[in-house]
Amino acid sequence: MKTLITPLAGATALFFSSAALADNHDPAKLQNEALQDSLAFEITEGLTTEVGPRLGGTEAEARARDWAVRKLNSLGFDNVRIEPFNMPTWVRGTETAEVTSPFPQKLKLTALGNSGSTPPEGLEAEVRFFPTLAALAAVPDGSLKGKIAFVSHQMMRSQDGSSYGAFGPVRFIGPNIAARKGASAMVIRSVGTAYRRNPHTGNTNFSDRVTPIPAAALSIPDAENLRRMVERADEPVKMKLVLTPQNIGEQESGNVIAEVPGRDPSLPMILIACHLDSWDLGTGAFDDAAGCGITTAAAKKIMEHGQPLRTIRLFWAGAEEVGLWGARAYTEAHGETRHAIAMESDFGADKVWRVEFNLPEAAQPLREKIVEALAPLGIGSLGPPASGGPDVRSIISAQNLAAIDLQQDGTRYFDLHHTPDDTLDKIDPEQMRQNVAAWTTVLSIIANSDVDFTMPAKE
Amino acid sequence: MKTLITPLAGATALFFSSAALADNHDPAKLQNEALQDSLAFEITEGLTTEVGPRLGGTEAEARARDWAVRKLNSLGFDNVRIEPFNMPTWVRGTETAEVTSPFPQKLKLTALGNSGSTPPEGLEAEVRFFPTLAALAAVPDGSLKGKIAFVSHQMMRSQDGSSYGAFGPVRFIGPNIAARKGASAMVIRSVGTAYRRNPHTGNTNFSDRVTPIPAAALSIPDAENLRRMVERADEPVKMKLVLTPQNIGEQESGNVIAEVPGRDPSLPMILIACHLDSWDLGTGAFDDAAGCGITTAAAKKIMEHGQPLRTIRLFWAGAEEVGLWGARAYTEAHGETRHAIAMESDFGADKVWRVEFNLPEAAQPLREKIVEALAPLGIGSLGPPASGGPDVRSIISAQNLAAIDLQQDGTRYFDLHHTPDDTLDKIDPEQMRQNVAAWTTVLSIIANSDVDFTMPAKE
Repeated sequence: MKTLITPLAGATALFFSSAALADNHDPAKLQNEALQDSLAFEITEGLTTEVGPRLGGTEAEARARDWAVRKLNSLGFDNVRIEPFNMPTWVRGTETAEVTSPFPQKLKLTALGNSGSTPPEGLEAEVRFFPTLAALAAVPDGSLKGKIAFVSHQMMRSQDGSSYGAFGPVRFIGPNIAARKGASAMVIRSVGTAYRRNPHTGNTNFSDRVTPIPAAALSIPDAENLRRMVERADEPVKMKLVLTPQNIGEQESGNVIAEVPGRDPSLPMILIACHLDSWDLGTGAFDDAAGCGITTAAAKKIMEHGQPLRTIRLFWAGAEEVGLWGARAYTEAHGETRHAIAMESDFGADKVWRVEFNLPEAAQPLREKIVEALAPLGIGSLGPPASGGPDVRSIISAQNLAAIDLQQDGTRYFDLHHTPDDTLDKIDPEQMRQNVAAWTTVLSIIANSDVDFTMPAKE
Repeated sequence: MKTLITPLAGATALFFSSAALADNHDPAKLQNEALQDSLAFEITEGLTTEVGPRLGGTEAEARARDWAVRKLNSLGFDNVRIEPFNMPTWVRGTETAEVTSPFPQKLKLTALGNSGSTPPEGLEAEVRFFPTLAALAAVPDGSLKGKIAFVSHQMMRSQDGSSYGAFGPVRFIGPNIAARKGASAMVIRSVGTAYRRNPHTGNTNFSDRVTPIPAAALSIPDAENLRRMVERADEPVKMKLVLTPQNIGEQESGNVIAEVPGRDPSLPMILIACHLDSWDLGTGAFDDAAGCGITTAAAKKIMEHGQPLRTIRLFWAGAEEVGLWGARAYTEAHGETRHAIAMESDFGADKVWRVEFNLPEAAQPLREKIVEALAPLGIGSLGPPASGGPDVRSIISAQNLAAIDLQQDGTRYFDLHHTPDDTLDKIDPEQMRQNVAAWTTVLSIIANSDVDFTMPAKE
């Protein structure tokens, strides 16, 4: 039955006038239906159970693409396809750590993406503690020769996720700074918010001018323990690290695309994104199987009620976590495609609490309609301008696109994000349904509008 | 200064009459002082930071004993000593698991204490799922040949910890049953309550008639994932296990003893216990550095205010987790010592919510005094009879001793117990102080009473 949906939807469209279709896509009605959704959870459950972790460039990610194609076809979407691309690939190896003196004990850590390697037998060195990234940056170049730099500071939970931007640099650029200072390796306190022995990975970036050093994140309890050791020891604290990740060269990744064809192909399409890949430690439920589930369930709900005016394109991006390779590949491949607006779901599955916009003047009445339609879901609208999620920012920038962001509550996001604890059990199906309802509402409005979304040229 | 406390306390005793001393140990006054305590946390912090994990029989546990002796001496206790004993010792090896088909992915698990080993290259076999231990027990002996038995059922949080007793058998005896059925290995869902990728270890016991099989606990998210795989797979789920723990033979462990000498050595002593060893995955903050901190801080508070009537003996037991070896060694060594009453703190550091008693008729007025004195701390008294903690049950049983239990709130105990997440950050200093206040209150009453605690002979 499922494979028959597309032809039927197409056929149905022939029998309805535009007005009837618009009525069929009544936002309030679809919102109510979407509050009963089970598809978003089903997708998240399937992907995390049947594939699990799916690091960009790996065989597991390839299995995830095949899974996605099967799923999207079975749901009746059109033009389901993989758009492959190549990208340099880094994979995790052994990772152990122990304090060797004066308080011997093992510590839990995980390598950061792009981390260099220790020798197979490990590296033992004195730990030099810095309470902030600025304190590390302030020491002279070359002054940390033979030392393990250790930066440890807290990060608070924040609903809008802004703390991650504020405290992320210790991970993004800390190891590069430590390498410049001559350090043999760097360990950081996980850029996360959960007091669990599960460290928070993520990419770090080395400039071409330095040789990547081993770089890892300690779990928060371990970082606090190491800091206490440094503070109470009468002698330097020594640590042994074994980190053996590898660069395995160019590997194939790919984007998965699917569409709900619009009645008027001359109108620019709506692009809705999530990312298919995940970090390798968890099963990537919150980050970002949930986003694929939410956006796909909303598009499917629209499709069930007849053909929308504009084409809706689903974009399940590949290799997001490891450097936004899928987003760049999409922009390269689709630079000539006319997009009206781009949106993404990539911040877990907790409730949407605010909608943000970046729309041209002509779309202001539509904005008011959206705000009103989302109000029953408890979604406010007083926030900064929309900027799009990570996988659509490239095309937004290249084509100067309009954007709408359905901001999810990120209070517990960094308890889970990039950790082994990002698993299906963290999804609250009730909150997830509110997401599907919000997305369905917005899609029902924008995909049936012929307003001109062209943004004013940037100065 | 610290080492001078004992002689001073002794000297002080000469100048006070018994009445003056009793006044010095006024329960309400000491309770208020104990609510400002920082010693319990200091001990917990020191032991978890400077020693960390300390599995019974290992070199780390020996370092913990040395740490304890230094600490207890520096606090001014009397007769501080190690009482060594030998015990068979099991140590963890490599532990990895992966589903190999039809949904390949790694799973997180940890070997149970006394687990057998797989070959170094691992063991791959079909998973046979059972929703309960009874379902496993119901299959014929020998029927699981070449299979990995998998039992997975939930356990609810409970304030009094009773769910652990109800659901613990899957760990305590499940692998022995699976071995009898012919299984190659057994995996269970962790007997714990936290949705984290950190499994819950603990001992399992094999009878002499079966050869121990590899036995491990999956983290709860992994157990749920494996169960979903079994339920959705069209073919048997296969799993590869690498578990290489070893029995390393008889090793030395030991109990650490310290005393606050009483004014009347002819009166039977008060025994207060905790255990010094921990499981190897966490730093043993909740289980049970906290118990040592709480009981020691209370005894120290009594000591600071002059000599009590009865001797208070601190008993930091060795090798509790791996089979109550310290408790047995204590009973063997001190079977002739007259004890009045035995108490233990071994259930974390959250607030005491109930006091339980097992006292002779003669001590009923004392019981009423204790109930009244604990009421300001919010501690109720309507519960079952006291039975003592794990390290004092042996001596209670051997000598038919009275007992008082200060029951701690165990709601989050099995989120942490026996997992890597049992670390210092889980201690709430404010709740810990309430524990010290409760213990100080009880000690101030019972250690200054000459009531006869002799229990009526058992039938």
